[in-house]
Amino acid sequence: MKFSIKKNIILEQLTNVSKAISTRNIIPILNGIKFELTSEGLYLLASDSDLTIKSFISNKDIESIDEVGSIIIQSKYILDIIKKMPSDIINFEVVDGLKIMIYTETSQYNLNCLNSLDYPKIDLSLNEKYVSLTSSELKKMIKQTIFAISTQESRPLLTGLNIKVNGNILEVVATDSYRLAKKTINLNSTYDNVVDIVIPGKVMSELDKILDDSEENVEIHIFNNKVLFKYKNILFQSNLLNGSYPNTDNFIPTEFLHVITANLNDYFSSIDRAALLTQSKEKNIVKMDIVEDEIRISSYASEIGKVEDRIKIKRNSNEDCSISFSAKFMMDALRTLESDEIIIFMNTDSKPIVIKSATDESLIQLILPIKTY
Amino acid sequence: MKFSIKKNIILEQLTNVSKAISTRNIIPILNGIKFELTSEGLYLLASDSDLTIKSFISNKDIESIDEVGSIIIQSKYILDIIKKMPSDIINFEVVDGLKIMIYTETSQYNLNCLNSLDYPKIDLSLNEKYVSLTSSELKKMIKQTIFAISTQESRPLLTGLNIKVNGNILEVVATDSYRLAKKTINLNSTYDNVVDIVIPGKVMSELDKILDDSEENVEIHIFNNKVLFKYKNILFQSNLLNGSYPNTDNFIPTEFLHVITANLNDYFSSIDRAALLTQSKEKNIVKMDIVEDEIRISSYASEIGKVEDRIKIKRNSNEDCSISFSAKFMMDALRTLESDEIIIFMNTDSKPIVIKSATDESLIQLILPIKTY
Repeated sequence: MKFSIKKNIILEQLTNVSKAISTRNIIPILNGIKFELTSEGLYLLASDSDLTIKSFISNKDIESIDEVGSIIIQSKYILDIIKKMPSDIINFEVVDGLKIMIYTETSQYNLNCLNSLDYPKIDLSLNEKYVSLTSSELKKMIKQTIFAISTQESRPLLTGLNIKVNGNILEVVATDSYRLAKKTINLNSTYDNVVDIVIPGKVMSELDKILDDSEENVEIHIFNNKVLFKYKNILFQSNLLNGSYPNTDNFIPTEFLHVITANLNDYFSSIDRAALLTQSKEKNIVKMDIVEDEIRISSYASEIGKVEDRIKIKRNSNEDCSISFSAKFMMDALRTLESDEIIIFMNTDSKPIVIKSATDESLIQLILPIKTY
Repeated sequence: MKFSIKKNIILEQLTNVSKAISTRNIIPILNGIKFELTSEGLYLLASDSDLTIKSFISNKDIESIDEVGSIIIQSKYILDIIKKMPSDIINFEVVDGLKIMIYTETSQYNLNCLNSLDYPKIDLSLNEKYVSLTSSELKKMIKQTIFAISTQESRPLLTGLNIKVNGNILEVVATDSYRLAKKTINLNSTYDNVVDIVIPGKVMSELDKILDDSEENVEIHIFNNKVLFKYKNILFQSNLLNGSYPNTDNFIPTEFLHVITANLNDYFSSIDRAALLTQSKEKNIVKMDIVEDEIRISSYASEIGKVEDRIKIKRNSNEDCSISFSAKFMMDALRTLESDEIIIFMNTDSKPIVIKSATDESLIQLILPIKTY
């Protein structure tokens, strides 16, 4: 294998595929990135056996292909080596069978490699039919839901995103059982099969880093036990989490005693200020009182002091009410909303709080209150 | 005590004095900031008993002084509280004797306080004579030397900066006994006493954060067991480290077999690249070979591979030579130099390497080589 390539081109694709390398990997060869040079171009592939990323650089984007071939290069230093190279064009050449020489006129690395024949075979074939949405839609969908997944390995399914497709409706749910985020997307075309899968949260975080905020199409190929995202010249394949995700539809109330409209920034800042005095505690609980045309957010820490913050609101009822919740959970939820005004839906102090943007029905944020007495 | 003040004014001075608060403090009252409001203005003071910082805000910069007085406010949340306040003008008012109310029209914090009478008395009186230099000179002097101090508490004196004054020459030395940085400054006026003191490194780091890169004057008032910096409206006083700092003058060779001129950026990048493969090791040793008109920097890690980098140089001798050193120490030293070209002075592979800027004689960086055989 011998070729020359522009630094920024190889760096971009190595950065993409290296997201599949796990630091907790115990299979040595999976710490490497597979380089496969053909006359069509260069394929890069990395995998931690749950997540596999493959990228292709066309021969049009390669300065010269002098000898085709393939090899496994250790991933640990490769990104830094490329970044620190002193010239725009970098040369790669396999020497002595299992060593790669990466060099410019004045710098030369000789790295030990592994044989590409020892790399596991990974099936990355596509389906005929797939779900399709834009990169920016998918990116936004991940951002608006993923924070609500569980970090507790005791309920593994809740560490993933539940994705359902039915006709032309795609629905994503994340919940850690104390809060829930649900996003609905209208697809441009109908998908024939009914889908109900759970994709690991950490995989979706890595996918988010690879996606641009663009109108470029992403194809989602869904299989029994895996899902494959095709984006530009990248294939991104993950195993699914096994089991049936809880039915979350009846978690979300549909009738409410209190419907309150507030300014998003004011409400966020108000909770942020009240949360300050409780930040050292595990559950940073703040209290929200709805009194006349005001929300009053307060918190109290016996050793430090207390804080109360007021904002003006519009509301549908005159009855005062009072509810306590985690400031962190509320701020996480508010960060996903994009309008100036938000709507807060509540019943009693023991029933879920639902928060929506005033202008976007596609996203629902839900938080359970915390009993403080 | 009752007053109103602009957010950015109180925030700036609270940020300054809070640098004296230690997280390892065991005396409760020293976790507080002393507020003392007089008709002249507001004095803020914080101390960890080794370092004391006092700042003054003139009544011209205070919106209204309604009632003079003093109180100790806990430092832990005060900066965040002020930062998150929703208006430009913030009101402070002592209520119930030992509580402070910090409020705007819509937000109100009530914080528990301590009695200012319980705060230790700290003498911050000035000398008649002092050493004077500009803030930017002092800032640069700290940056160019402080990285070389020791982090080992076993030799406490080496964790400080040694400052000597003799006539109109100020000299700063830092060493951890493997490397040394020495900076000389010509003072505008002669100081009558001979000074040889050691200031704790962590204190100088805090001072650096308070200083601006300006031509503003800093007065250094030197006492037997303490030093006081006066800068703008800030008094910054630290205890000294006790004992006599080693005489470092004869550490620095004055005659050299090899005098090499190299481009700073090229040399730095070259070491940076070679250091990559050794970065996981405690001593990241690289080897430097001087061959003809080239420096060759190389390193080798059996499990990973090897790297060699070459740069063109000018030199005074024709004899080849070879020396090994810590890449981290060399890069730390190179980061303090400001010219395009640097001069590397060497004797044999067991003698100190000296590095200087080609255009600035006031700074000397010294590194001991590492024997690799």
